[in-house]
Amino acid sequence: MELWFTEKHTPYVQFSIKIEKQLYAGKSEFQRIDILESREFGRILTLDGYLMLTEKDEFIYHEMITHVPMSVLPHAHRVLIIGGGDGGTAREILRYKTVESIDLVDIDEMVADACRRYIPQTAASLDDPRVKCHFEDGLKYIRHYENEYDLIIVDSTDPFGPGEGLFTKEFYGNCYKALKDDGIMVNQHESPFYPADSYAMQRAHKRIFASFPISRIYQAHIPTYPSGHWLFGFASKKYHPIIDARWQEWKKLAIKTRYYNPKLHAGAFALPTYVEDIVREVE
Amino acid sequence: MELWFTEKHTPYVQFSIKIEKQLYAGKSEFQRIDILESREFGRILTLDGYLMLTEKDEFIYHEMITHVPMSVLPHAHRVLIIGGGDGGTAREILRYKTVESIDLVDIDEMVADACRRYIPQTAASLDDPRVKCHFEDGLKYIRHYENEYDLIIVDSTDPFGPGEGLFTKEFYGNCYKALKDDGIMVNQHESPFYPADSYAMQRAHKRIFASFPISRIYQAHIPTYPSGHWLFGFASKKYHPIIDARWQEWKKLAIKTRYYNPKLHAGAFALPTYVEDIVREVE
Repeated sequence: MELWFTEKHTPYVQFSIKIEKQLYAGKSEFQRIDILESREFGRILTLDGYLMLTEKDEFIYHEMITHVPMSVLPHAHRVLIIGGGDGGTAREILRYKTVESIDLVDIDEMVADACRRYIPQTAASLDDPRVKCHFEDGLKYIRHYENEYDLIIVDSTDPFGPGEGLFTKEFYGNCYKALKDDGIMVNQHESPFYPADSYAMQRAHKRIFASFPISRIYQAHIPTYPSGHWLFGFASKKYHPIIDARWQEWKKLAIKTRYYNPKLHAGAFALPTYVEDIVREVE
Repeated sequence: MELWFTEKHTPYVQFSIKIEKQLYAGKSEFQRIDILESREFGRILTLDGYLMLTEKDEFIYHEMITHVPMSVLPHAHRVLIIGGGDGGTAREILRYKTVESIDLVDIDEMVADACRRYIPQTAASLDDPRVKCHFEDGLKYIRHYENEYDLIIVDSTDPFGPGEGLFTKEFYGNCYKALKDDGIMVNQHESPFYPADSYAMQRAHKRIFASFPISRIYQAHIPTYPSGHWLFGFASKKYHPIIDARWQEWKKLAIKTRYYNPKLHAGAFALPTYVEDIVREVE
C-alpha cells in the first residue's frame, strides 16, 4: 500500500510525504490532531491537516524562535511560551541554565499529550521541573500579567482556527504590558511567498510594529513549511536584535546548535528586497 | 479535468503544481523538454521531468547567480555562461552596460528555442547583440580558452544526465585556466537538505575547493527547488566574496533587483551550522 500525507500550500500547490503508518489520530475541542510516521522526516505532527513539525527539520524552527532572542537576553529568568504544546521551543529555552521558569500556555492539552507519547524528541521538555504548563487560552492568560516576563515567544499555529486570537492587536498590546522594560517578544510570522501567507504576515507585522518601538523580521529555511521560506518577528522595548546581541556571553554558554550561529543570526535579518518591500508597505 | 505536474524531491517527498495546459513537449538528442502553464507560477520549464524554472520565482535564482559575483566585478567585460539556455542568467548579466560580450554555451539548442517561443521573460535575452550562443558541450568548449573571461557562470542542470560533466574536476580546472587572473566562477551548487542533493553538493564543493584558492558557498530561498534551500558556489582566484565587493560602484549602477541587495549578499554567505559542517567535511 502507498500512503501519502498531502498538504495544499495553496489551492494550486501540493506538498506530499510518503507515510509508513498513522500513529495517532485524535479530535480535541479545538482541532484534529494526527501523528504520522515517515521515512524521510521521521514523525510528523499535523493539526487540522497542516504540518506543524517533523522530527527531521523541527530543529530549524525551534532554534530560530529561541536562540535569536536569547542571544540578546542570555540571562533571561522568566520566559513565557504561548502555544508550543509540542515542547520544542521549551526544550531549546531549557538549555539556558539561568532561566528559572517557563510558563507554557497552550489551549489544547491533547496536543501536548499526543506529543508526550509519540514525539518525546520535543515533548520530553514538558516534564522538566522548570516548565509549568497551563492549558488555557493564551489570549486570556496574558491579560493578567504586567512587567512579568523577560521573553515571550508566540509559537502559534496559523492565524485561523484556534491560533487566530494570537495575531490580534489586543494580544500584542497585552504582550507588551506583560514584558519587563527590556523585554522581547518573538513570534512565528508566516511566510512572504504565497499570497495568503504573505497577507497574514503583513497583517501581523502591521500590528506588532504599532505595538513595539523596535520591530524587525528575520527568516529561516524550513523545508517542510510552505515555500520553505519562513519568517519570525522580533519585537522589543529596548534592544536591537543585532547591535545588542551579547555574543561573548552567549558563546560562553557553549550551546551546541545545528542551524543557529552568530553569523547566521545577523544574516537572518537581511531580507530579500521583495520581502523588505511588502514589510515596508505596512510600517 | 485536473492536471498536476509532480516532481519527486526524494523517493518519499513530492511537490505538485496544478497545470492549466501543457504548452510544449519535445525530445531532443539530450533530454525531454516540457513547458507548462500554471496559475500559481506562470510558465514552467522542466527537463526530463525536473523543474528548471518558473516565471514566478526564477528571479531569485537568476539574480543570485549573477549579482553576487558582479558586485565584486562590476566592470567585468567578458562573461561566459555554461548552460543557462533559458536565458535568465544572460538577462541579468546584460543589465551591466560594461559587459561587452556574453558567450553562452548550452548543449541543447531545443531548450533555447522552446524558451524563445514560450518563455520570453527569460529567453528574450538570447537575441541581444551582446549574447553569442554556442550550442555545444561546455566541457569541450572550455578546453580551448586561457586567460579569457572575467566571470564564468555555471548554470547547469543537476549532476546526472547532460549536466554531469559540468561537475567534474577536469571541468573546474579548465574554468580556472579560462579565467583571467582576477576571475570568478559561480555555479549552481545543489541543496544541503535531502541526502542525495547534499551528497552532490559535497562532491562539487570538494572539487572546486581543490581547484580555486578562494571557494565559498552561499544560499537562497527558492520555493520551487527541493527543500527550498538552494546553494551557489563562489570560486575565485583573488577576490573574497564579501570583503572585496565594490558596493559604491555597484550601487551607482542603480540596478533594480527584487531579491538581491547588498545586505542580503553578506547574509547569504552566513550558512546554517549543519551546512557549514557538511561543507567542512570535504575541505
